[in-house]
Amino acid sequence: MRQLLDRLTLREKIGQLNQRLPGWDALRVNGSRLEVTDALRREVDRFGGIGSLYGLQRADPWSGRHWGNGIPPERSAEAAALVQAYVVGHSSSGLPTLFVEEAPHGLQGLGGQVLPVNLAVGATWDDDLVAELAALVAAQLRGRGIHVALLSGLDLLRDPRWGRAEECFSEDPYLAARLAAATVTAMQGTGTRIDDTHVAVVVKHLAAQGAGIGGRNGSGAPLGWRELHEIHLPAARAAARAGVAGYMAAYNDVDGVACSANRDLLTGVLRENWCWEGIVMADCTALDRLLDAAPDHAHAGALALRAGVDVSFWDQAYVVLDEALDRGLIEMADIDRACARVLGLKQRLGLLDHQTMDDETSFGTEASTGSESRAGDDALAHRQAHRLAHQLARESIVLLSNAGVLPLAAGQRLAVVGPNADDLAAQLGDYTAPRPVPDPDSSTVRSALLELGFAVSYAAGSKLRERLPGGLDAVRAAVDAADVAVVVVGGSSRRLYESEFAENGAVAGADLGMTSGEGVDLSRVAIDPVQIEVARAAREAGRPVVGVVIGGRPHSVTEFAGFCDALIFSAFPGPTGGDALADILTGVESPSGRLPVTLPGGEGVWPVAHDERRETSRGYADASYTDNVLLGTGLSYSTFEACVLKASAEPGLRAEVHVRVRNTGGRAARFVVPLFGRRHVLGIRPRVRQVVGHAAVRLEAGAERDVVFRLGAAQLGTVSARGLLEATPGHLDVWVSGDLHPPTDAVRIEVLP
Amino acid sequence: MRQLLDRLTLREKIGQLNQRLPGWDALRVNGSRLEVTDALRREVDRFGGIGSLYGLQRADPWSGRHWGNGIPPERSAEAAALVQAYVVGHSSSGLPTLFVEEAPHGLQGLGGQVLPVNLAVGATWDDDLVAELAALVAAQLRGRGIHVALLSGLDLLRDPRWGRAEECFSEDPYLAARLAAATVTAMQGTGTRIDDTHVAVVVKHLAAQGAGIGGRNGSGAPLGWRELHEIHLPAARAAARAGVAGYMAAYNDVDGVACSANRDLLTGVLRENWCWEGIVMADCTALDRLLDAAPDHAHAGALALRAGVDVSFWDQAYVVLDEALDRGLIEMADIDRACARVLGLKQRLGLLDHQTMDDETSFGTEASTGSESRAGDDALAHRQAHRLAHQLARESIVLLSNAGVLPLAAGQRLAVVGPNADDLAAQLGDYTAPRPVPDPDSSTVRSALLELGFAVSYAAGSKLRERLPGGLDAVRAAVDAADVAVVVVGGSSRRLYESEFAENGAVAGADLGMTSGEGVDLSRVAIDPVQIEVARAAREAGRPVVGVVIGGRPHSVTEFAGFCDALIFSAFPGPTGGDALADILTGVESPSGRLPVTLPGGEGVWPVAHDERRETSRGYADASYTDNVLLGTGLSYSTFEACVLKASAEPGLRAEVHVRVRNTGGRAARFVVPLFGRRHVLGIRPRVRQVVGHAAVRLEAGAERDVVFRLGAAQLGTVSARGLLEATPGHLDVWVSGDLHPPTDAVRIEVLP
Repeated sequence: MRQLLDRLTLREKIGQLNQRLPGWDALRVNGSRLEVTDALRREVDRFGGIGSLYGLQRADPWSGRHWGNGIPPERSAEAAALVQAYVVGHSSSGLPTLFVEEAPHGLQGLGGQVLPVNLAVGATWDDDLVAELAALVAAQLRGRGIHVALLSGLDLLRDPRWGRAEECFSEDPYLAARLAAATVTAMQGTGTRIDDTHVAVVVKHLAAQGAGIGGRNGSGAPLGWRELHEIHLPAARAAARAGVAGYMAAYNDVDGVACSANRDLLTGVLRENWCWEGIVMADCTALDRLLDAAPDHAHAGALALRAGVDVSFWDQAYVVLDEALDRGLIEMADIDRACARVLGLKQRLGLLDHQTMDDETSFGTEASTGSESRAGDDALAHRQAHRLAHQLARESIVLLSNAGVLPLAAGQRLAVVGPNADDLAAQLGDYTAPRPVPDPDSSTVRSALLELGFAVSYAAGSKLRERLPGGLDAVRAAVDAADVAVVVVGGSSRRLYESEFAENGAVAGADLGMTSGEGVDLSRVAIDPVQIEVARAAREAGRPVVGVVIGGRPHSVTEFAGFCDALIFSAFPGPTGGDALADILTGVESPSGRLPVTLPGGEGVWPVAHDERRETSRGYADASYTDNVLLGTGLSYSTFEACVLKASAEPGLRAEVHVRVRNTGGRAARFVVPLFGRRHVLGIRPRVRQVVGHAAVRLEAGAERDVVFRLGAAQLGTVSARGLLEATPGHLDVWVSGDLHPPTDAVRIEVLP
Repeated sequence: MRQLLDRLTLREKIGQLNQRLPGWDALRVNGSRLEVTDALRREVDRFGGIGSLYGLQRADPWSGRHWGNGIPPERSAEAAALVQAYVVGHSSSGLPTLFVEEAPHGLQGLGGQVLPVNLAVGATWDDDLVAELAALVAAQLRGRGIHVALLSGLDLLRDPRWGRAEECFSEDPYLAARLAAATVTAMQGTGTRIDDTHVAVVVKHLAAQGAGIGGRNGSGAPLGWRELHEIHLPAARAAARAGVAGYMAAYNDVDGVACSANRDLLTGVLRENWCWEGIVMADCTALDRLLDAAPDHAHAGALALRAGVDVSFWDQAYVVLDEALDRGLIEMADIDRACARVLGLKQRLGLLDHQTMDDETSFGTEASTGSESRAGDDALAHRQAHRLAHQLARESIVLLSNAGVLPLAAGQRLAVVGPNADDLAAQLGDYTAPRPVPDPDSSTVRSALLELGFAVSYAAGSKLRERLPGGLDAVRAAVDAADVAVVVVGGSSRRLYESEFAENGAVAGADLGMTSGEGVDLSRVAIDPVQIEVARAAREAGRPVVGVVIGGRPHSVTEFAGFCDALIFSAFPGPTGGDALADILTGVESPSGRLPVTLPGGEGVWPVAHDERRETSRGYADASYTDNVLLGTGLSYSTFEACVLKASAEPGLRAEVHVRVRNTGGRAARFVVPLFGRRHVLGIRPRVRQVVGHAAVRLEAGAERDVVFRLGAAQLGTVSARGLLEATPGHLDVWVSGDLHPPTDAVRIEVLP
């Protein structure tokens, strides 16, 4: 590595640390021809190479790329190869670039596999299944020539107002950590080298973006170290243990220091405490935002580089690192350190194995036709991914209440009404490429129930936040003609090509059609009043009403629930969401999802996380705690009993908890068993409750199984001021009922130093 | 001190650290006779003395004491003397007790001087006037035999939902610090000894209670040290510099460690960093609440004692300190240290000067009649205090908007309507003793305008949160008969004798009549819909509408303002509030108050403090930032211009800013000039804006004056990790306009290390 570094000029080194060109500007689709652009030529020329290239295949309203002008899926590998060949062939450094793409829930590119959003994944509590899918997604990414996937997974959902709530797995650090680690491992593989069926993962965001004050995107997080380490860093720690290739530093500050300039975080915690090695990437334009804490770009760049940011993302601040060096704000060793990390990742990906590549005379390619066998593999992988995504969506559906109306009976006439009853885009979440047309993989509640042979009358009733003329009459007419009303409401992160976007791609303009997503923070999170009117109209007909919320955030459902005989919560379930919901509604499958987050009982009562520290307040005089719907809530069509049989502590912060689970109902079903705990440490106010383990079992009617939960340092230890897990005397009470406080049959595990 | 300590037994020392007996249970009013109770006898006997006695004179719904059974004001000194004589005469230690009383805004005892609440004081920006009044209150307290006043002053108003918002001076640490220090100095005097016209102050709460999550009383504050030191500790630091006798540790935890068990805070910050000496008192039952972080009372007591709590307040935890000693959880030195501090305070108050007091054979006294000359002094002091309280209330009134309808013209017929138009209790704030009947010192808007000779038609229109039958018709009728409608809405902290209370006196039961105060946290802070109906009804008559909000928290006034041609905000102004508001409404005095807090523009948008760190978020997609009404807002009946003439930095973290102020309007008026600043330090995300100075001038029409602001370390320094103020290179931009961001004419002060 030293040898390689020594070969590079300062300009080339700085080039490795920059990621400036919007990837979608690097290549042009000109009829059947793919051509590199002058923008790419200039960028390669400027730095003698390109360290990494973000978004070559991105296709969404921000990039302005769609099926009409974007890179066709079947030519994406070719496109990447073309750009890579140009970079390698025309770089003075001769170094290949890293192709970086968003993969917050599947691949954000045309025809990419789209998964349920993280919040839905959180509701499945199924790290095995999500790993299986993540592996397929990684293979798809790598198959398209992509090296680095930007994966949401570190943000904790602590405020329902935040527009990016859907990108969080959970409010609970245990659950987020498990799912983040499973995804990272599956996408990268377990080897030191990342082979050509896997990708490097840059997991985001580090740290505490979910704690931004007011739930506002990127606002400050004035947190203490204990809160940071106990709530916001466990998922990051789990990713480090999984060998994650990189972290993206968050926009927000932590107690005044922007994450991108935060040496304590990027070097102290990550490298010195956790002994992790890899790259830290800044978020888009985040380094130039350091100008509020630095007099000029050179200072901003110096702050970031010295803190531990290796790769910039569209900033001027890292372009002027040479100036920073001249002015003595940084040293060459700072640049070398970052550059070595970038090269280290390229090496890990095998990109430095063949440093001399064939030059091509013309950097443009025609569509090739000789890829039938590859297409056959692709189709198989696609079918498999589709099946698993459908299963994941199914497992993510949470049944909150059921007064005997679900599952629906065959032959019932259904009224399927509400703004999300037949709106595919509202199922997909943010950061999603447009779906193909036609789209055989997609379904809505309406289309899926029709497909299953039900007689379905339909009315949207309203938009998400606007009335529709005649909408309520149409709802009444639809319900009058039916035996049961299914009212599908919620939110949407659908971006429009007409929207305005901020420099970094967040939604910046008014958009009534969007109620979630980056840039869409809300002060109110209840089901919108116009949607409540739809529910009321449906209710008036006197038929049973099944409520379905499809949304991207923990909506308050208290008022909506008042109109429903059964209520389902489904975080954006993805393209197969309609089929998945129909499976649950009709009883093809029993619901098994559990809320990964607490739904606030009303407006203005946040935060509501189940793991806040104990308090003696009686709550709000004008609101009831009992309206909050707790993390872990989720019913089945069967009934289950679970109890802790025994718990035993072992030396070295280990313990086992044995739990017996029995299906006491009439049908086979999957059942998720969260293990809850309250940790008592002398002098520390305990958190009310935390998840300390989980298991999922599938049991036939009447069957029982014993499950062993293995607890480790993350559950039994306490965080030291340095962020390390220590054995501190005290105890952990564990239980499996959904109670917020330890029930009388909670079992105590003594923790000894 | 060592000698005195050595004379005490362990039991006696422990007695000095306990404050267990509810003071109102120590004495009985039996017809004309005052008698010590068996409860007092038992307590003295148990500990060989009583360290301190809380609430002997407290009279409110919680204590159940009122004019019918409480200690009459004219006998309060005698009552204290009686109890003291008993304690001294019957203690094995022979030590006098400390009489401790609440004085959150004046004396909470029958006939005590009641001031506007702190939030109103904050709106005056008048530390001189509040000091003058505080001195009178202190003299009244000491005249009644009281030694220690519990003074609200350290809590920062960071969440409008918190029921104790009224006890905060401001959201801004500078303003809170100035007013806290002024009050402490005035009440204690400036000497080392506290003479018999002053009292010792225990200022509360330490620390960050205003940052409790969710705005819930005593909930956790998971703050970082920078947020803690920059926002929540400056008022405490100012109190330490003012030589405050004590601090009350807050209920909340700071990043997981309860303040009462927080050595970093109570010993590290207070004593080691700030070199402060004095006592730390726990909040009521706070040490027993440590049982959530300790296995038993002895451990809880040990945690607190070793952290630095000297005096308990109604806990079992300090009763069992002997057990803690036996078990090795504490050492005798820990007890001695705390005991020495308590004795030190008694010494500072002169209570140890005459250790042998005359015993009395019978601990009961008849009413004496020989106190005419004292009564004459009292009457004088009372008149003076009343006059100043009236002035303070007047200065606290903030004119938010005025479309030419104010001041009211003589001879106008007025409709004075709304639930707070004629409700004295709604002006008084929490922790207030019942007013005497009749009460010549008190006025409401209605009574004051009548007193001034206006023709007034009146209708309450509604209760605070409930409709009144026929209420809106009565409003319409009243307005129909008038030229102008004055609509007085808001909130109330009135406690009822029928209410339920928590162990520590916070309101615990349902109480529709109360919308503020300890225990009344709310999830919604806008003017209540039933009050909006009153405004709408008043508006319908087509007359100009003057809106007046009398409240204890930063209510959102956006909707209410839509019905008003002029709008006034008045934090609970106290008994003289009616006269004060009438002075402003009629133009006897020009309004000069400025908001000490930002009013949120709507529900769910908090926090809204003007000094949050800069963020790049565009705010909420469904709410507008511009609806927030910024700290510093306040109009006059005159017009003023202010500009920064020059600013000069001096060595040693000092600077001067010269500001010219001119009254450009047509009448003499008081004018408050807040100096705003934004501090830039390399690597720290700056706060949007902070108050860095203030001045108040009274100027004739056309007059101008130059004012010099002197800035010091608190404004120019930065907080180190140890909580000390350091000179860090950077600059401070200062300006006097109300702009949230530095305007083009902001003046830069360079800060050099």
